[in-house]
Amino acid sequence: MDSLRVITTVRELQAEAERERRAGRRIALVPTMGALHAGHLSLVKVARERAERVWVSLFVNPTQFNDPKDFETYPQDLSKDLELCRSRGVDLVFAPSAAELYPEDAQTWVDVERLSQPLCGANRPGHFRGVTTVVARLFLAARPHVAVFGQKDFQQLAVIRRMERDLGFGIDIVGAPTVREPDGLALSSRNVRLGPLARQQALALVAALDAAQNALDQGCRQRDELLAGVRETIAGASQASLDYAELRDPDSLELAPSVLAGPSLLALAVCFRPDPDGRGGEVRLIDNRVLCPQPQTEDRA
Amino acid sequence: MDSLRVITTVRELQAEAERERRAGRRIALVPTMGALHAGHLSLVKVARERAERVWVSLFVNPTQFNDPKDFETYPQDLSKDLELCRSRGVDLVFAPSAAELYPEDAQTWVDVERLSQPLCGANRPGHFRGVTTVVARLFLAARPHVAVFGQKDFQQLAVIRRMERDLGFGIDIVGAPTVREPDGLALSSRNVRLGPLARQQALALVAALDAAQNALDQGCRQRDELLAGVRETIAGASQASLDYAELRDPDSLELAPSVLAGPSLLALAVCFRPDPDGRGGEVRLIDNRVLCPQPQTEDRA
Repeated sequence: MDSLRVITTVRELQAEAERERRAGRRIALVPTMGALHAGHLSLVKVARERAERVWVSLFVNPTQFNDPKDFETYPQDLSKDLELCRSRGVDLVFAPSAAELYPEDAQTWVDVERLSQPLCGANRPGHFRGVTTVVARLFLAARPHVAVFGQKDFQQLAVIRRMERDLGFGIDIVGAPTVREPDGLALSSRNVRLGPLARQQALALVAALDAAQNALDQGCRQRDELLAGVRETIAGASQASLDYAELRDPDSLELAPSVLAGPSLLALAVCFRPDPDGRGGEVRLIDNRVLCPQPQTEDRA
Repeated sequence: MDSLRVITTVRELQAEAERERRAGRRIALVPTMGALHAGHLSLVKVARERAERVWVSLFVNPTQFNDPKDFETYPQDLSKDLELCRSRGVDLVFAPSAAELYPEDAQTWVDVERLSQPLCGANRPGHFRGVTTVVARLFLAARPHVAVFGQKDFQQLAVIRRMERDLGFGIDIVGAPTVREPDGLALSSRNVRLGPLARQQALALVAALDAAQNALDQGCRQRDELLAGVRETIAGASQASLDYAELRDPDSLELAPSVLAGPSLLALAVCFRPDPDGRGGEVRLIDNRVLCPQPQTEDRA
């Protein structure tokens, strides 16, 4: 028995949301760009714990791709996505066309000014403006009580939280922990495009996070020293080039002080080239960890 | 018996909207900056025809004032506004503080790119971004089925319609005709700040619109000729200086062609100085009319 509903228009979705709300049922939305993997499914699980209805949106949002090639090569497999949703008891999938979400002559942007500037914002101009615009549109279409996003996209989560708070959607924004491959690589829809060598070297991201964590545990509080270790680790991967490695305040995303005092976001973006034998494509991966320096006491040493 | 509810927080308003919606009642919102006059009350009347509940918001929105002096001198009289709302059977007034609508570190903007550029947008940088941001916030707080705006602010209405459509609020945006003084001056909260001489000369706006209408009725289709007549009329007022007089497409707000072919928005903004004896303040007034050239036939002449 197939209980998964698939809706493609905003109007139908809004009507369905109104029905559920009138019936007093809570809706949790998991916005995705499809190409679902275990990371997304973990978001579905979190959503299930918080609402009677779990809705997943599948939409590869053109306005958040600053690189047209990245957009064109972004993996898509609707029938597999639907099958996965069905297997996890998702109640409804929203799979609109681009024309449905962006009407003719669309020209309205939702922009979170400061949090969108650094990190991925600096390297992908317009990216977060595209994210916040489409997420606002999805929030208005689905009218959820809860929306679940992955912590792998740390800055995205911060930007969306800010947008929700500033505009007052009345939606509970939930961040869910990053899901990883057995070897530690953070799950990403883009992982499938890594060549075998690049896939192996992609472990440099989590190795770099571990290195910084270890240095911190050894008592290092020097921001630049921690970042130097990160850069060194990434430099050891022949197919990789570092996009950014930064330590920032987890709330304001402002640069961490030169000596870390409190919790600090270590955020990484690394670009991988195709393997020397031509396998794989250009793939940009991100990962992060919030480092929490423990108070240093005399007797600790 | 006082049946007017006054709410000051977004949270309470959202809860009230949820209750009304669950009960199947339609809500019409009339967003205002207070200083209510007969123009606003006509919006209330239109709202009443379209919904069981009429809600009025009173909020002088700081982010839409490009000129701090204009913001400081904007007329406010809450008790009179409440009395007027009560007398017209308004069900609920939303009167939030600025801190309620703009939380600490607020940094999210809603921007309608192209429609916000010309006319008042060119002369008041950031004005429409402030308008769309606060209206989005009010829409999310009140969750109305209908929202009513005056046609006097023609561009504002166009910008808000576009925002509603692009983001998909699912709100019916209704434009209501401009209400005028017996002598023809469009009602505006700013009229009270005109000195007696400027008040008299403010009739130049409607005279200029009439002059263009007359010229059109006489068969003139030349954009620049029509605008020259408008400028001449405004130039006859000693206290006035023209901010802009333009003919534009009523939908796209693009410049009208040099020979008018279809309906064209004639939009005016005029600044008035204090009277020579010092009475009154600096006041900027706007007005508009959509001119509809009739097809010219041989036998018409």
